[in-house]
Amino acid sequence: MILDPETDLSFTRTIAAPPELLWECWTTPEHIKQFFVPKPHSVTSCDIDLRVGGRFNTTFNVEGNEMQNNGVWLEVVPQRRLVFSDAYSEGWKPAPDPFMTAIVEFESDGNGGTRYTATARHRSAEARQTHEQMGFYDGWGTVATQLEEYARTLL
Amino acid sequence: MILDPETDLSFTRTIAAPPELLWECWTTPEHIKQFFVPKPHSVTSCDIDLRVGGRFNTTFNVEGNEMQNNGVWLEVVPQRRLVFSDAYSEGWKPAPDPFMTAIVEFESDGNGGTRYTATARHRSAEARQTHEQMGFYDGWGTVATQLEEYARTLL
Repeated sequence: MILDPETDLSFTRTIAAPPELLWECWTTPEHIKQFFVPKPHSVTSCDIDLRVGGRFNTTFNVEGNEMQNNGVWLEVVPQRRLVFSDAYSEGWKPAPDPFMTAIVEFESDGNGGTRYTATARHRSAEARQTHEQMGFYDGWGTVATQLEEYARTLL
Repeated sequence: MILDPETDLSFTRTIAAPPELLWECWTTPEHIKQFFVPKPHSVTSCDIDLRVGGRFNTTFNVEGNEMQNNGVWLEVVPQRRLVFSDAYSEGWKPAPDPFMTAIVEFESDGNGGTRYTATARHRSAEARQTHEQMGFYDGWGTVATQLEEYARTLL
């Protein structure tokens, strides 16, 4: 995949847990609740239909406020790659003003761990900049750390 | 699929050609050129990678002006259902200002023909209204007639 530095944000890090386990964490509501938003924020509900066009809906509790996020899976390549977006809700209903499309990639590091790449693609340079200022690297970095910590409890 | 009358446009008609043949017409560049825009407009090029996330790019000649349309396939259910949109170009690059998501469905009528349903979903009521005023029913209706006429030459 060719990234566009004007509109995309991305990082890669190595996580000390295998791709199959990280895949399970990313695609199972009970696991999602454990790592998906930086603590002390939390995921209060998660509803997944893991197929192309299926729903990926979450509710966050952010300082006492509920935030509902509806999206769909755009691509599902087992144990390798997930693409999802708020550009649609289930049934391919277009969202009025989507924010981003996320691509999460899992690749074995050949040593029992995973090269983990998280990418957010945006519709405009302004949206990318907003996301960066909201704390993409810190936020998604924290999520990756939480994912690693949680996944290792399942080893 | 539940339609939203505020934002969606849709019609169903019966076409006197089997679903498998209409599927071939809709997924093959050489066939697309024969029916995909109302004549005398024409499709001057068509590039298809028929998989989820793959490209569906066309160039139209409209009264001497070239119009480039880049999109992707969102869902590919062989011989039954195609979903595509200009919301992305290949590689899940979000478009700044997508217009619509199209769903084309092919169902056997039990008599050698096809119940053919074409749906356009939009991000807003305004976009639906614009599309209706641009001539959705006439335009897509003409395309369905051209598809039927062309497909029958292949029987």
